[in-house]
Amino acid sequence: MQSISQLQVLINEAIADLKYPKSPKELYDPISYLMNLGGKRLRPVCLLMACNLFSDNIHKGLKPALAIEVFHNFTLMHDDIMDNAPIRRGKLTVHKKWNNNVAILSGDVMLVEAYKLIMQVDPKILAEVLTIFNDTAAAVCEGQQIDMNFETIENVSETDYIQMIRLKTAVLLAAALKIGALTGGGSQNDAGLLYDFGLNIGLAFQLHDDILDVYGDPEKFGKQTGGDIIANKKTFLLIKARELASGETKKQLIFWINSTEKTDEKVIAVTKIFDDLNVRQLAEFEMSKYAKKALQSLALVDAKDHKKNNLKTFAEDVVIREH
Amino acid sequence: MQSISQLQVLINEAIADLKYPKSPKELYDPISYLMNLGGKRLRPVCLLMACNLFSDNIHKGLKPALAIEVFHNFTLMHDDIMDNAPIRRGKLTVHKKWNNNVAILSGDVMLVEAYKLIMQVDPKILAEVLTIFNDTAAAVCEGQQIDMNFETIENVSETDYIQMIRLKTAVLLAAALKIGALTGGGSQNDAGLLYDFGLNIGLAFQLHDDILDVYGDPEKFGKQTGGDIIANKKTFLLIKARELASGETKKQLIFWINSTEKTDEKVIAVTKIFDDLNVRQLAEFEMSKYAKKALQSLALVDAKDHKKNNLKTFAEDVVIREH
Repeated sequence: MQSISQLQVLINEAIADLKYPKSPKELYDPISYLMNLGGKRLRPVCLLMACNLFSDNIHKGLKPALAIEVFHNFTLMHDDIMDNAPIRRGKLTVHKKWNNNVAILSGDVMLVEAYKLIMQVDPKILAEVLTIFNDTAAAVCEGQQIDMNFETIENVSETDYIQMIRLKTAVLLAAALKIGALTGGGSQNDAGLLYDFGLNIGLAFQLHDDILDVYGDPEKFGKQTGGDIIANKKTFLLIKARELASGETKKQLIFWINSTEKTDEKVIAVTKIFDDLNVRQLAEFEMSKYAKKALQSLALVDAKDHKKNNLKTFAEDVVIREH
Repeated sequence: MQSISQLQVLINEAIADLKYPKSPKELYDPISYLMNLGGKRLRPVCLLMACNLFSDNIHKGLKPALAIEVFHNFTLMHDDIMDNAPIRRGKLTVHKKWNNNVAILSGDVMLVEAYKLIMQVDPKILAEVLTIFNDTAAAVCEGQQIDMNFETIENVSETDYIQMIRLKTAVLLAAALKIGALTGGGSQNDAGLLYDFGLNIGLAFQLHDDILDVYGDPEKFGKQTGGDIIANKKTFLLIKARELASGETKKQLIFWINSTEKTDEKVIAVTKIFDDLNVRQLAEFEMSKYAKKALQSLALVDAKDHKKNNLKTFAEDVVIREH
């Protein structure tokens, strides 16, 4: 069994080996650029780990693992246009380095490239894997649309928020794990359990991201904290704070939400409100709840315990990571 | 055997029956809106006609026919953003009626919907059909990128132009016909011949479009003529005119290309240059050449002559149509 970091190396090497046509340059250069900006490769690594539970030949999972990573990066390329984001992993986003049209069209062909990769699974599981991939791809788009809609909705409920991150973030991790199980020869039941594992870990992962954006150590987190507060992003913390705040605290919170100031003062003030309302603890409680559910599903998977260690470590890392 | 217009009705009914999730509205409403704006449904009708050459059960071709039409409309939704086009079939384009982000994301999910439809072919031909679909989808994106690149290239050669319309327009018609043949149970050889038929008809179709944009009857063509001239669009006519013009004619042509006037005067003057250089006849000659090649491929297809009549009529219509 290979370690998580060995699997990351394997994925990065396979990504570096991906070949695209040389021309038109504007269509294919942005794909190589974005794919090689790095990242933790969580989704493809999870796919290989799930495959590895049932097969020693993890190379059977390599093409679908790449498909999931290409798909994920396609969503980043298009999301960055929609969010007008200038920077991704410390470098210019594709639509800033080139332009919007290039980012739209290069993203489109990237989605097609993802399909080229996903169809390279064993023909016996092709139809099933494609169905998972299609349903997941549509769900991720739905999640992004709901997230954009949140910008103009004043009161987003906790339930709506969890549903949004389920679609935008969790289903892709879940699909990666399920497809990994199927490529490794796992049973339908085990594939379903790994889907549930991925879904709950995905929710825990996003909640942890919300927490780290406020409480992370900027040096370890890799970016300045407070970005979500400045952008009034409706994270779990802000949604909970709005729900729980009353009296003077509520007034203060609404004052800062309506303020157009993008200063440290706002970050400090809103963080203080979060502290007073204990929303960090509530988010951590929810995160742990989902992580526990994930581990319960993993425990039921019909595979040797020592084989599950990688996924267990991964799940534990998600809730204790600092970046 | 059903007539072309009966097949159009069948396709339109199937499109009206396509169901999408109700929510999020911004994601799915634009798909229904664009798909139901009408159009000639050439690609899906061709797919059904090719299927019908080898099978009386054309319903086997219905899902892939819809896949091709959904894919085509996905490209229109994204192309309209890139071209900043306000109107499509007499109505507001999606990015004008909603906004750019909606048109990007709704287009993305539309591409996924096309994949959901294409995978509903007989599992025996699934891998082959998917490969054709993937390769075609990538080629269409390449064609759009090359077409956009033409905007900033002064001298586009005839060869480059034909290659661009081959990718942007012809391969999708070719793929529709090949997939139709495969769903109907046609041989590899016949599927290949129908691909060639589609490719050449597609080229003829686009050349005819270039001609109609200058010489069409606006009432029959459905839009004002001269649009390509005003936009300095590098059509076959303009490329040929630049190649052939010399002396005073060349000076005049370059004067009008550099002119920012968007007037009837420009249209009349450039049309006069086209007339003097006989570029319409050259375009018609090329168009007929491709149409003849298409009919030669069709003649070689192993099917009864009376069964081929629909496709023959279709090919003849392409070169004599007025809209």
